[in-house]
Amino acid sequence: MTETESTGRRHTRDDVARTALRILDDHGLPDLTMRRLAAALDVQPSALYWHFPNKQTLLAELADRIVSHGRPAAMAPASTATASTATAPTDWMHAVRSEAAALRDALLAYRDGAEVVSSTFALGLGSTAAVDRLASAVALGGFDDHTSGRAATALLHFILGHVSHEQQRMQYDSFGVVAGGVTTSSIDEDDPAAAFRFGVDLLVGGLEFSRSRR
Amino acid sequence: MTETESTGRRHTRDDVARTALRILDDHGLPDLTMRRLAAALDVQPSALYWHFPNKQTLLAELADRIVSHGRPAAMAPASTATASTATAPTDWMHAVRSEAAALRDALLAYRDGAEVVSSTFALGLGSTAAVDRLASAVALGGFDDHTSGRAATALLHFILGHVSHEQQRMQYDSFGVVAGGVTTSSIDEDDPAAAFRFGVDLLVGGLEFSRSRR
Repeated sequence: MTETESTGRRHTRDDVARTALRILDDHGLPDLTMRRLAAALDVQPSALYWHFPNKQTLLAELADRIVSHGRPAAMAPASTATASTATAPTDWMHAVRSEAAALRDALLAYRDGAEVVSSTFALGLGSTAAVDRLASAVALGGFDDHTSGRAATALLHFILGHVSHEQQRMQYDSFGVVAGGVTTSSIDEDDPAAAFRFGVDLLVGGLEFSRSRR
Repeated sequence: MTETESTGRRHTRDDVARTALRILDDHGLPDLTMRRLAAALDVQPSALYWHFPNKQTLLAELADRIVSHGRPAAMAPASTATASTATAPTDWMHAVRSEAAALRDALLAYRDGAEVVSSTFALGLGSTAAVDRLASAVALGGFDDHTSGRAATALLHFILGHVSHEQQRMQYDSFGVVAGGVTTSSIDEDDPAAAFRFGVDLLVGGLEFSRSRR
């Protein structure tokens, strides 16, 4: 094979995305360059553009894979089918908590996962799977589409803010640079999962509270 | 003056921080390097370490200045004095909303403000002013210190997630790269202030809801 042969023939789009995800997970987002990715695939950087016209498109593909981590590929949003029938309060609250926890797990499964997903989300790229799943879970509570969408967005901002903080700390901890105890007085740094559930519960409780005010 | 003269004698710590804040605001966080800062102050990079032992310490100083933007320097957290007396529900809710809105305004006042504050927060550096102000406002509602601290942290994660998204979009918009309408179906991109208030209201309502469950 010649050095300039298109990766389009040598590698599938899936090969390229999987290699990029491995580089991300091993070295972090700042080290995921098109040059490095091309070297790992043993092709010229220009050959990558056969599959991804630019780096943003590649990151959007990675964001979609991160968000769907741990979910069966063919699975529809869990709650769509029953969204039209209002369920007991504990059911929809449980559904939202489950979706939020699954998203946190997915983001944590890849180094810098929250950063990749949040930048893709800000660009308006990538699938809307994360927001859609959260919105469907909220809609189970009988909230209208507008409210469900807004609540899903608020949940997503909280989730990305929280997990981004967790992942930055992990990174800093691995360099041994986190200052001891300065901000820990008001934060559950020792149990981020509990702090996460507390935040999600406030958002879910706020929805229930807003209903009682209508 | 010789080229190697210490910035400690030529510039105060405040001079260095103000120049850094200007570079941040004009060019963004990726372009705020110690080298560029030294050039703007017309000193050698090594001279900066007289005031800031490393870049993290400099960013922590900037984070503190960003968080206190628009607040009188000598002002104590607004609500500490009355935190021991429970107030009417609307009062503490109003206090939390005000603190959250003031923090959003402060973060938005500087390019990449949310990113500077969130990375400093994750490092455990910088003052705890932001969390303290939010916690004091929550405590006005008669919540215990642990609950107030956890709620303040959840609010901060939401605020940083939300404003970071807004600032990324502004950045992308200025480059003309945001994809049209892909994720806007469930997001108030046209009115981020309203979306922000909705999220804060859910968190505040969630606290009131948790009280009704006790």
